[in-house]
Amino acid sequence: MIGGVAAGTKAASKARRDDPSMKITIITDEEYISYAGCGLAYYLGDVVVSRDKLFARSPEAFREKQNIQVLLEHRAERISTYDKTVKVSNLVSGEILTMPYDRLLIATGAHAVIPPIEGVESQGIFTLHSIPDADNSRNHIKDHSVRSACIVGGGYIGIEAAENLSLRGISCTIFEIENQLLPRFFDPDMSGDILKHVESKGVRVLTGTKVERFNISGDGFVSSVTAGGREHECGMAIIAAGVKPNVKLAREARIATGPTGAIKVDRGMETSVKNIYAAGDCVESVNIVSGKPCWYPLGSTANKQGRVAGANIAGGRKTFDGVAGTSIVKVFDIAAGRTGLTEKEAADAGFSPVSATITTATNAGYYPGKGRVTLKLTADSGSKKLLGAQAVGDTSVDKVIDTVAAALTGNISIPGLTNIDLAYSPPYSTALGAVIVAATVLEGKLGL
Amino acid sequence: MIGGVAAGTKAASKARRDDPSMKITIITDEEYISYAGCGLAYYLGDVVVSRDKLFARSPEAFREKQNIQVLLEHRAERISTYDKTVKVSNLVSGEILTMPYDRLLIATGAHAVIPPIEGVESQGIFTLHSIPDADNSRNHIKDHSVRSACIVGGGYIGIEAAENLSLRGISCTIFEIENQLLPRFFDPDMSGDILKHVESKGVRVLTGTKVERFNISGDGFVSSVTAGGREHECGMAIIAAGVKPNVKLAREARIATGPTGAIKVDRGMETSVKNIYAAGDCVESVNIVSGKPCWYPLGSTANKQGRVAGANIAGGRKTFDGVAGTSIVKVFDIAAGRTGLTEKEAADAGFSPVSATITTATNAGYYPGKGRVTLKLTADSGSKKLLGAQAVGDTSVDKVIDTVAAALTGNISIPGLTNIDLAYSPPYSTALGAVIVAATVLEGKLGL
Repeated sequence: MIGGVAAGTKAASKARRDDPSMKITIITDEEYISYAGCGLAYYLGDVVVSRDKLFARSPEAFREKQNIQVLLEHRAERISTYDKTVKVSNLVSGEILTMPYDRLLIATGAHAVIPPIEGVESQGIFTLHSIPDADNSRNHIKDHSVRSACIVGGGYIGIEAAENLSLRGISCTIFEIENQLLPRFFDPDMSGDILKHVESKGVRVLTGTKVERFNISGDGFVSSVTAGGREHECGMAIIAAGVKPNVKLAREARIATGPTGAIKVDRGMETSVKNIYAAGDCVESVNIVSGKPCWYPLGSTANKQGRVAGANIAGGRKTFDGVAGTSIVKVFDIAAGRTGLTEKEAADAGFSPVSATITTATNAGYYPGKGRVTLKLTADSGSKKLLGAQAVGDTSVDKVIDTVAAALTGNISIPGLTNIDLAYSPPYSTALGAVIVAATVLEGKLGL
Repeated sequence: MIGGVAAGTKAASKARRDDPSMKITIITDEEYISYAGCGLAYYLGDVVVSRDKLFARSPEAFREKQNIQVLLEHRAERISTYDKTVKVSNLVSGEILTMPYDRLLIATGAHAVIPPIEGVESQGIFTLHSIPDADNSRNHIKDHSVRSACIVGGGYIGIEAAENLSLRGISCTIFEIENQLLPRFFDPDMSGDILKHVESKGVRVLTGTKVERFNISGDGFVSSVTAGGREHECGMAIIAAGVKPNVKLAREARIATGPTGAIKVDRGMETSVKNIYAAGDCVESVNIVSGKPCWYPLGSTANKQGRVAGANIAGGRKTFDGVAGTSIVKVFDIAAGRTGLTEKEAADAGFSPVSATITTATNAGYYPGKGRVTLKLTADSGSKKLLGAQAVGDTSVDKVIDTVAAALTGNISIPGLTNIDLAYSPPYSTALGAVIVAATVLEGKLGL
């Protein structure tokens, strides 16, 4: 198993459960395994109070409880598909190992994109992708009594970083090159609500603004950012400009990648080379709505794919049929979630999207609680097929998105969605709830 | 439209929207229309602070904004299907009207069952089905400084009454004739968790205990209950022994009822008599999992059925395909929800149920928050088909149940459910979440 975070460790555990006798080794170039990549922003913000809790399982536990060998700080350098070996270098000793395999998992993950901005290699500039990233940025905040931060990128990590740094009293500015926050995930109308909320929390957001230069003080640390022709002082910078799949090892072994640039796998998570599987952030999936390849690197997907790959490596026949494109982010006091296709993604995939956007209370009007959720439901005007949902609100966003994700998976029609039997009681929903109300409006717009 | 609560008013509004010229009259024997029946227990507990908020729309609003006539305190006495009239009596004046119809909706609702217990007609004993019920019980509590209550029935209303009376400092005892709380809704194992929580809040629960007699003081008010051979003092009693559909009017017009005793309707909500529709608590539905008739009187279902009936009364062709048997109840600090079939219901419907029960955190372990949910997922060991879910927990119960309800509606397989793309971010779920974890265990049990 090359890779020791979500997919690699899940696959190893599943393979061990299904085959008690197989020899299993996890190889990772990192110092840590089985850590919560999704928790790093919250660790930065002291929301996660115990660093230990970021680790789901120790290397010792893998060895002792599951008989899974773990090689930390060992880099898989080359896969020879001809003689079925992996050349592995010990990053501490420099030693080179040649390790044979019958079956191999590539779970090499993704890496943070570092945009080619002048000064980007200076000190005080961090990504938030690994445990050392988080440790380093936390140490910098403490050592330099950081009061302000520039965040390059208004995607999920950028917004999580802004929230968490704000919680520590650090004044944040987000620079987003596109004209909206979360441009890859939400339509502009829904993104506008998120922007307003972020700004209401004291975060400056400069959309349509490219960071031109990191300016460096005499001691080698970033002191400001030049963007949009102006200079913005900062005690640190976070690079949250997206991620790319780690596919070098696979490509050099002539394992096929797909149109997204990530590794192509079949429904059994097997790559183009027999007995070599891949899972997690380095592979692409099928979007079950568009039927097209897509790449949404997420810890939840990595776990599921790792399980399927692990089962099949142990001789099973499990399948992973694709993703719905579901994701959610906490944005201070609200949540923003999506599933399926946005209007833009739908149009790009060849659909003719039509949407209904509604706002409802998240419990009965007479019951205490002032939660509200705005739901945008999108369908194809030709086929009348449900395509996706985007939701922003202070409660219920996860519920509404999960419900629509299941509806997309089960191919429920829009009229079917208007009558779906969801859980109603005054503390939890209005009598109909956001999904049904939006489906009803959408049904009308579709002329159904 | 005979009936003025959820289905009747929804049907009237929908019919008006779809046909601006039709003459529409709502007839109800009650003094109030368009009220929140589901909110009455919370009004009893002063959780709903404004009585006005229990009314969604006033008779004047129906008249003036929607041109819908409303006859309060008018009882539909007899439907003549031959000459298409309804004989209506004015309950105030005694006047008899004969009202013609082209299309008729029967939305006569349900009534609280009054068990034939000695003394049940005494003062201080209440049901919780109408606005006057709630007003009367509130007045009684105030006028008699009630300190203790006996609640007959451990179903949803009984539990809501216990919670709400407890909130007012009234010590409650629930008497349930079956051996568990919520016997119609949860398997005994899940019900046990609910019982423990209710008891932890100071409510006494006597299961397997029949109320034999209401004992009456000299002033005609209930003073104690004799049950299980013992006497239990109380300043009031709530009868929460279930409901039955109001079908007398329909039956007398030779409109067919089904095996559940409620009115039989087709997918368009039309009864066995052409141009007579029925919706809400007085009709039975198809359970989409078992394919069999079922009767779950709920405000959410009444709204959906009312909308379909209203559309069709206005000449439309909408359908209501059935219910999943979804419901949820707040139980002090936890929620209990279900959808599809319990193990018992599954066995009764001819399936061979197999279940997996898991307990998970409702957010990532390292993220603050100690929410937990227990989910029991049931499938048929023959067909391997998903049959239902029951969930009890302090958060996420509504989300988990809605997700499974959508999975049942969309006929998602168990392996499909193990890979469903649900919204994950540390504040909202573990990486996999309760539904996927339970589906994974169930998949193993089914040998898939």
